[in-house]
Amino acid sequence: MGLNVYLSGEIHTDWREQIIDGAQGLDITFNSPVTDHDASDDCGVTILGEEPNKYWHDHKGAMVNAIRTRKGIADSDVVVVRFGEKYKQWNAAFDAGYAAALGKSLIVLHGPDHQHALKEVDAAALAVAEQPSQVVEVLRYVLTGTLPG
Amino acid sequence: MGLNVYLSGEIHTDWREQIIDGAQGLDITFNSPVTDHDASDDCGVTILGEEPNKYWHDHKGAMVNAIRTRKGIADSDVVVVRFGEKYKQWNAAFDAGYAAALGKSLIVLHGPDHQHALKEVDAAALAVAEQPSQVVEVLRYVLTGTLPG
Amino acid sequence: MGLNVYLSGEIHTDWREQIIDGAQGLDITFNSPVTDHDASDDCGVTILGEEPNKYWHDHKGAMVNAIRTRKGIADSDVVVVRFGEKYKQWNAAFDAGYAAALGKSLIVLHGPDHQHALKEVDAAALAVAEQPSQVVEVLRYVLTGTLPG
Amino acid sequence: MGLNVYLSGEIHTDWREQIIDGAQGLDITFNSPVTDHDASDDCGVTILGEEPNKYWHDHKGAMVNAIRTRKGIADSDVVVVRFGEKYKQWNAAFDAGYAAALGKSLIVLHGPDHQHALKEVDAAALAVAEQPSQVVEVLRYVLTGTLPG
Amino acid sequence: MGLNVYLSGEIHTDWREQIIDGAQGLDITFNSPVTDHDASDDCGVTILGEEPNKYWHDHKGAMVNAIRTRKGIADSDVVVVRFGEKYKQWNAAFDAGYAAALGKSLIVLHGPDHQHALKEVDAAALAVAEQPSQVVEVLRYVLTGTLPG
Amino acid sequence: MGLNVYLSGEIHTDWREQIIDGAQGLDITFNSPVTDHDASDDCGVTILGEEPNKYWHDHKGAMVNAIRTRKGIADSDVVVVRFGEKYKQWNAAFDAGYAAALGKSLIVLHGPDHQHALKEVDAAALAVAEQPSQVVEVLRYVLTGTLPG
Amino acid sequence: MGLNVYLSGEIHTDWREQIIDGAQGLDITFNSPVTDHDASDDCGVTILGEEPNKYWHDHKGAMVNAIRTRKGIADSDVVVVRFGEKYKQWNAAFDAGYAAALGKSLIVLHGPDHQHALKEVDAAALAVAEQPSQVVEVLRYVLTGTLPG
Amino acid sequence: MGLNVYLSGEIHTDWREQIIDGAQGLDITFNSPVTDHDASDDCGVTILGEEPNKYWHDHKGAMVNAIRTRKGIADSDVVVVRFGEKYKQWNAAFDAGYAAALGKSLIVLHGPDHQHALKEVDAAALAVAEQPSQVVEVLRYVLTGTLPG
Repeated sequence: MGLNVYLSGEIHTDWREQIIDGAQGLDITFNSPVTDHDASDDCGVTILGEEPNKYWHDHKGAMVNAIRTRKGIADSDVVVVRFGEKYKQWNAAFDAGYAAALGKSLIVLHGPDHQHALKEVDAAALAVAEQPSQVVEVLRYVLTGTLPG
Repeated sequence: MGLNVYLSGEIHTDWREQIIDGAQGLDITFNSPVTDHDASDDCGVTILGEEPNKYWHDHKGAMVNAIRTRKGIADSDVVVVRFGEKYKQWNAAFDAGYAAALGKSLIVLHGPDHQHALKEVDAAALAVAEQPSQVVEVLRYVLTGTLPG
Repeated sequence: MGLNVYLSGEIHTDWREQIIDGAQGLDITFNSPVTDHDASDDCGVTILGEEPNKYWHDHKGAMVNAIRTRKGIADSDVVVVRFGEKYKQWNAAFDAGYAAALGKSLIVLHGPDHQHALKEVDAAALAVAEQPSQVVEVLRYVLTGTLPG
Repeated sequence: MGLNVYLSGEIHTDWREQIIDGAQGLDITFNSPVTDHDASDDCGVTILGEEPNKYWHDHKGAMVNAIRTRKGIADSDVVVVRFGEKYKQWNAAFDAGYAAALGKSLIVLHGPDHQHALKEVDAAALAVAEQPSQVVEVLRYVLTGTLPG
Repeated sequence: MGLNVYLSGEIHTDWREQIIDGAQGLDITFNSPVTDHDASDDCGVTILGEEPNKYWHDHKGAMVNAIRTRKGIADSDVVVVRFGEKYKQWNAAFDAGYAAALGKSLIVLHGPDHQHALKEVDAAALAVAEQPSQVVEVLRYVLTGTLPG
Repeated sequence: MGLNVYLSGEIHTDWREQIIDGAQGLDITFNSPVTDHDASDDCGVTILGEEPNKYWHDHKGAMVNAIRTRKGIADSDVVVVRFGEKYKQWNAAFDAGYAAALGKSLIVLHGPDHQHALKEVDAAALAVAEQPSQVVEVLRYVLTGTLPG
Repeated sequence: MGLNVYLSGEIHTDWREQIIDGAQGLDITFNSPVTDHDASDDCGVTILGEEPNKYWHDHKGAMVNAIRTRKGIADSDVVVVRFGEKYKQWNAAFDAGYAAALGKSLIVLHGPDHQHALKEVDAAALAVAEQPSQVVEVLRYVLTGTLPG
Repeated sequence: MGLNVYLSGEIHTDWREQIIDGAQGLDITFNSPVTDHDASDDCGVTILGEEPNKYWHDHKGAMVNAIRTRKGIADSDVVVVRFGEKYKQWNAAFDAGYAAALGKSLIVLHGPDHQHALKEVDAAALAVAEQPSQVVEVLRYVLTGTLPG
């Protein structure tokens, strides 16, 4: 058994690298959204033409990014969604809902402060973790049946 | 043609009433989550037994509420998701993603301040409105082909 | 057995009325796109706000119209698509492809001049007619087993 | 992440070659309909027997071509549909609708003259481009996160 | 609980009437193909235009009949397929396969002589009966829990 | 909002009646398997012919009962599965798995002794109750938003 | 593009070998049912235990063969169904219906004598051939765009 | 043709090893749940944090195990479910129901004592075996068409 894992959400810390590094040796293919913030914001207008209105500027970029996001989630067995300390992060919650509706196994990663605000998202998850290392341990257990320690 | 419309999101203003009142005379069935904040938070433990741990208190409630939410979205033709000025509102974005993955027609309702943060959600929508009255006008046009004014 | 029939395509002649009138007495619910050309073009900007750029003007309207179109096709048993003598009518062919992919029974209505250009669309259809009266006769036969004459 | 891309539509210019050449080095599998116009028109009767009636001649060919087209679209992550300057190109719009109903990511490629006539098709797309090079740039960005320039 | 039952297959005996009469008083909606043999054979050419080639004559009719058959099977909870003593009855077996793939509950009705030839069809069924009265008894039991006698 | 609720599992106590009585006044349609134990065991052979081998006797009955069970679960919004004190009740767990795979909202009803043995079933549920009255309260809350007391 | 092709139906002539041989060099994976008639009839009882009743003897075998058949059809892009001169061949028509309901591309192979009896099956097909060599030519054209001669 | 086979159920005997050993040389990928009983019970709390309440201890583990189980069943062509002599084994019956609803080919493995209690599960199966060697023989026949002896 191998796994295809999509890493959605917060892009300001190195949680993706921690998970990918920790999971070395496991039969996992990781995918992610584009995490270069400027490229992600500007991809639409840079490629398809400028927009004077910021709303359409954002819209064009979000549509192009959706090609990658949809493919990443559709191909995945497991979707990990990380909520960081800052920002609204509505795209992360949107991805969680999208993944849940497709029947993907959902792992949510967030600190204890967000428990109440994320209760509906957590209720759709099969694991709720606080640390990237816990996500690695879940993935290792799922694939190999071995527990840490 | 009639429509089944699910009204998801913010529960602190009367936007649902504005839409339902404005849509009187149209062949629309509206559904919503439970909007009594205390009942929504406590339904799980009140019915199924107390939990000393707040996380499981929240979890039990979120699961019971999911019975209603899933039914409401699954039965709908159109899902309207309202983002208010305050709070994280991750459940609203989760519902939007869930609805999008099921191929529901999505209408997003929010003020101009949230445009950038909601760009991925808006990109999945067929209409983005700022006022409940605009949602009513969209629904009236969809059902009757008539425009305001 | 009753039928839900969606009438897609050309809006410049009275073919819809001919079919609906001819089918009186049959257990059929008909739905159609908004056929008021101006309303259809302008619904997006009239309700959701003006756009100086014609592309986004059109885009907003097409998105709002899609709420009605998707509902109409999704609910239908049979989709009738009419191609007239003039214009590109790509939305008609788009609806035909959309309906075919959903497994709807497709009836295509066009004159003999378009046979070669429509061969891929016709190949997805269960009936190809030249006159609205033939569509009525197909629907009557499907529901009652009776043939004309 | 790799992509499977289906290139539908106009067969009279070298836009497919431009995209395939431009995308060299990217992990993309391209598929297309048969673009030999005569073979495409005559495949049915050549293999399965002559038809004196041109309608059935066309029909037999369209059915055989559908084996390839359906497979190409069903296997794809992204469907690019090109509308050229001439002809009705209803099969292109049909493919766009078919792809949209299956939830494929749609990229539409056409000149500015067709914007109004293609507004419903564009409204179902995640990207609308005027040049094949823009399609290449979208695909490169989706796979690698890098923008031109 | 009510049932929607589609009665497919042999059209030369009164088995449909026996079932419909026997099931009076039960909450069942019955649907069937057109059982007027001549109308069924000629519906295509009578409505949509003559064909000199018998193959296309048959084809046009089979396509029109498919509008009714697909609707009847798609709407059903239970599909009863009757194989008589004579003829190839490939359309009956086709309907059985079609219904099985859609997950419909299948009841097969045939005499003991056909057991070996129908073993693959019977293996997809939830009940195999020899008499129409047995089908009625199965339907009565499913709806009311009562057994004969 | 109304609900269609299927009551699966144990047939030796009056838990179904308790739920149906308690839910009076709510917009709920209840369905159940045939709960007459003898009829359920013998329906196959009584209607479709005796079997000397007990395995096929059971098989024929289980197949006929499946017509009702599949319809009941397929039509439901909520599946309640009750595990009693005695017997293997594998059909109850089978129904729970079947319902879970179809995305139905699952409510499991059992005493505290079975918690460990039912942990996989409970993990697929949105509510786990010990008393039929709790199931009624969950359904009332889901439909009306009101809590007991 | 490669194809997965399932060869269903008649087992008394070498049509499968003709197609497989003719298609050498094409990127096609062929699958078939077990074509050893005795093994196919007796597989159930040989492995899972004798049955004195011929009906259950046949039933057990048909169920075991269904594991292979369902897998073969489910994995396929194209299903070729061959009807020979003799026997009822209801399993062939059943497979054709099953494949059609799953949206597989269907090619039917039969002599001209069966045209009327197979009109409903042919109407669900994308190609109707009389010779195995024509099936090869269709597959070659679909994969390579080249026509014979 | 190759097969992906998921081996669900009883973990106290070596039936999985018997099947995997017996199937050597066949093109089969086998998957199973974690069969280390202690790891399976404790995986949730070991990785994601202790729970003083045994119910939530079990729940957390069952959710983590579900990531593996769902993936294993979703990817499979055939699900073998083994019921042993002891314990409730509701998770095995749950997996059988889950697999049946997804249309997987089900093979049930149990001793003759459980025939009556498992009649609903057996009725959903394509093969019912008493010995692991029979499962191997079924798989070998399905893949190669050869029978034992």
